[in-house]
Amino acid sequence: MTTTPRAPSRGAIDLNADLAEGYGRWSFGTDDDLLAVVSSANVACGAHAGDPTVIRNAVATAARRAVTVGAHVGYPDLQGFGRRSMDIAASELMDLVIFQLSALSGIARLEGTTVRYVKPHGALYNRVVIDEGQAAAVAEAIAAFDPGLAVLSLNGSALRRASQQHGLRVLDEAFADRAYLPSGELAPRSMPGAVMHEPDRVTERVLRMVLDNEVVAIDGTVIEIAVDSVCVHGDSPGAVKLARHVAQALVREGVALASPLTEASTR
Amino acid sequence: MTTTPRAPSRGAIDLNADLAEGYGRWSFGTDDDLLAVVSSANVACGAHAGDPTVIRNAVATAARRAVTVGAHVGYPDLQGFGRRSMDIAASELMDLVIFQLSALSGIARLEGTTVRYVKPHGALYNRVVIDEGQAAAVAEAIAAFDPGLAVLSLNGSALRRASQQHGLRVLDEAFADRAYLPSGELAPRSMPGAVMHEPDRVTERVLRMVLDNEVVAIDGTVIEIAVDSVCVHGDSPGAVKLARHVAQALVREGVALASPLTEASTR
Amino acid sequence: MTTTPRAPSRGAIDLNADLAEGYGRWSFGTDDDLLAVVSSANVACGAHAGDPTVIRNAVATAARRAVTVGAHVGYPDLQGFGRRSMDIAASELMDLVIFQLSALSGIARLEGTTVRYVKPHGALYNRVVIDEGQAAAVAEAIAAFDPGLAVLSLNGSALRRASQQHGLRVLDEAFADRAYLPSGELAPRSMPGAVMHEPDRVTERVLRMVLDNEVVAIDGTVIEIAVDSVCVHGDSPGAVKLARHVAQALVREGVALASPLTEASTR
Amino acid sequence: MTTTPRAPSRGAIDLNADLAEGYGRWSFGTDDDLLAVVSSANVACGAHAGDPTVIRNAVATAARRAVTVGAHVGYPDLQGFGRRSMDIAASELMDLVIFQLSALSGIARLEGTTVRYVKPHGALYNRVVIDEGQAAAVAEAIAAFDPGLAVLSLNGSALRRASQQHGLRVLDEAFADRAYLPSGELAPRSMPGAVMHEPDRVTERVLRMVLDNEVVAIDGTVIEIAVDSVCVHGDSPGAVKLARHVAQALVREGVALASPLTEASTR
Repeated sequence: MTTTPRAPSRGAIDLNADLAEGYGRWSFGTDDDLLAVVSSANVACGAHAGDPTVIRNAVATAARRAVTVGAHVGYPDLQGFGRRSMDIAASELMDLVIFQLSALSGIARLEGTTVRYVKPHGALYNRVVIDEGQAAAVAEAIAAFDPGLAVLSLNGSALRRASQQHGLRVLDEAFADRAYLPSGELAPRSMPGAVMHEPDRVTERVLRMVLDNEVVAIDGTVIEIAVDSVCVHGDSPGAVKLARHVAQALVREGVALASPLTEASTR
Repeated sequence: MTTTPRAPSRGAIDLNADLAEGYGRWSFGTDDDLLAVVSSANVACGAHAGDPTVIRNAVATAARRAVTVGAHVGYPDLQGFGRRSMDIAASELMDLVIFQLSALSGIARLEGTTVRYVKPHGALYNRVVIDEGQAAAVAEAIAAFDPGLAVLSLNGSALRRASQQHGLRVLDEAFADRAYLPSGELAPRSMPGAVMHEPDRVTERVLRMVLDNEVVAIDGTVIEIAVDSVCVHGDSPGAVKLARHVAQALVREGVALASPLTEASTR
Repeated sequence: MTTTPRAPSRGAIDLNADLAEGYGRWSFGTDDDLLAVVSSANVACGAHAGDPTVIRNAVATAARRAVTVGAHVGYPDLQGFGRRSMDIAASELMDLVIFQLSALSGIARLEGTTVRYVKPHGALYNRVVIDEGQAAAVAEAIAAFDPGLAVLSLNGSALRRASQQHGLRVLDEAFADRAYLPSGELAPRSMPGAVMHEPDRVTERVLRMVLDNEVVAIDGTVIEIAVDSVCVHGDSPGAVKLARHVAQALVREGVALASPLTEASTR
Repeated sequence: MTTTPRAPSRGAIDLNADLAEGYGRWSFGTDDDLLAVVSSANVACGAHAGDPTVIRNAVATAARRAVTVGAHVGYPDLQGFGRRSMDIAASELMDLVIFQLSALSGIARLEGTTVRYVKPHGALYNRVVIDEGQAAAVAEAIAAFDPGLAVLSLNGSALRRASQQHGLRVLDEAFADRAYLPSGELAPRSMPGAVMHEPDRVTERVLRMVLDNEVVAIDGTVIEIAVDSVCVHGDSPGAVKLARHVAQALVREGVALASPLTEASTR
């Protein structure tokens, strides 16, 4: 990699990844490796992935490593891994989010840690970027459950606005390995080039996001981007290597990896 | 009914029933009626029954009516309604119980109430009467989650012993409409006469249990029985009527309906 | 009811209802009553409702009563009863439809009958009225599985067109108790007045549909409607009474209740 | 490996492996590799593993490679991967087996092949070795669905006897990588040494089973064993290598890999 060292424009950045994405006998097998890299863990809550044992193990390891725990709430769709958008009524969606937050919070308390933020997963993540109704339901559920929870959200999303209306703290999220549309939305996974795998390219993009607050969209335009937390993926051994590559490059640039929520007590 | 009024040997008894036993579009339709009768609600937690909306509604109504909330933890088997005994490893069973306790506790807090006890459901209830391993796992999970929780348990059960070893408070439970074996175990549902439906007969049995601490087993022997809480069922309109009948008879005998856990703060 | 007897414009009409909509311990309890009324049974296949026992019982009773069996294929969403629209990729939707058709067909063969038609359920039914992609996937799956199967479909739907392109026989369906938009689509359940419960009114509408091929839309306009089969519901005791009321009125008008598929062998 | 070539006591042996054991986003990733090795595929049917897409893909590949297709029927327990014994009533178990056979058979027909045998999976496999009631239910379900189906079963199992009583053809199965108790039952997975991973040792055992009809039990005693089909596992890349190793050794000994059911038409 040939990035020129820059004067660090910031002291620290949060690196988050999806955890507890197994179910029963199935697992991506990357939880322990990821938890050695990231500062924040988006823990599945049993709706799109994660059974009680998988979840508890991930939370226990996160607690031991002082990784900040967030609730990765998703659609109730194991078969589709939460990646199929669903028309769920607002009140039912609220209940689903509250159930998932409840389940994870109890386990976190038992394991000596605390859920500090919420990040919608998969199709729900993408939907609350643009769907005001589902975004409002998610934000209202979070605020009702615990107004001290932060929300991880895409720049300019409906969820961002709804969360702020409820007085929730919002963390702006950027994606290490995903292409952006010029609008700032993520390019859908079905679009060619939507997911990047080349370590140097991905790392270069992350450094530019974190240090210069900009990213090159899929059509070549440079867009401005606010970043409190960078999402790295971990659903394959290659993805973990990529995450490690990004983490090392950030540290090399003098940027510490840390959650802005670590010190805050949310309960 | 022609029960002769007796000098009340006790001031109060707890009446418990199973709540939130619907799922999605399905429901027994009796939650609201039951919550007008009982003093304790065994709320399903999503494993054998209960989706987030069903559970939240039941908890909210219980809170409004000052009915004590308990976690009705069960095997993860919607199709079998938790009535099929499963060989689950102790550590997995612990995680399953913790997950269910967590989910219900978060919802209870949100609705302004607290989970105060745990009662295993269906096949798990029967299994922890005799299976030391599963009983130990359930008791350990409860103690790990919250040692202030009480446990509703059958006289002489393995769960009773395991719970006491963990320092948990145990409430002795008796069943209004179920026949007993001379051993004090419940007669299995598959046995003829295992479930009773005749209001006067059921009520007479409950009065004798509560006032005289004895019950006539299926073979005619009279067995001694300790009773802190009487379980009434509610999975049909007829069952609700039966529950109401029992409740009225108790009150008529001067026995108040109240949970012994109401005043205790468990968290 | 005060309908004036009309010269029957047709000799027979098909009456269909949804069957096997229970799951495990849960049931609407109306299967046997409905099968005494209708000529065609839309049998759930385990995705939105229906477990193996529920399905087999419904099919066995349908076979005994010579009621024509259809596959009521739905989204894989027990919690939402298949009533939440899902963005499922075409190839996955094909596999889901094929799996459901397979499961029901094997059971039907065992019970001495044959699956003769397919009707999408709930949100899938509504979606394939307008979503060309999902409609094409459903039609292609049906044609691949058995080109002798008929398709029950709303007038003017995308599924109707896609089915015809695959050479599938299409039966036009009308709904006894649902309001129509002037476009011929069903008024969404969330719209006031979308579902009717008044027996005389519902029956009058059915007679007009069947005998005169027209229906009054929710805004008062009279729209033309082709009807091979009328759907009656059965998810409550009241619904069964309504179905019976409609059936009796049709017979009184000299219209026989029969499936046009009964004689055809599809395998 | 230092096995001495022996005069082949038989011309051919069947090699079977478990297929379609993924679900949604999860997979062991070994289906295609296994189907290049084995002669028979035990295809999951959606109860313990396998969604419609996973199943259809496995069946299509098996058909293309002329691998014989069997139904790997299991308990309805995705979370436990069918490895937790369940007390299911005989009539419900029959319905579960019939549903799974139906689903797989329809998909097989569509993909141009036929289900030719049934093998219970996981905890059900072990249970029907000793549980007469569940064994009878499984055998009765198979015979009711298609009496031309064969049954893969452990030597001396209750399922073997029950299947023969129903006139079903039974294939005796042995396990390449599993230790045996002196009784001929499999050593439970929880017992140390129950699963073997060392290629040469596993292969030597298989050759002795196939060529000499004997195996050394976990306590050192040599037991006689009848073998029509050898099960190799495939739930990890290592397992596939092991399967390949076994297959090559058999071929080297002059034993062809072929299902005895290939020529038979079962429908």
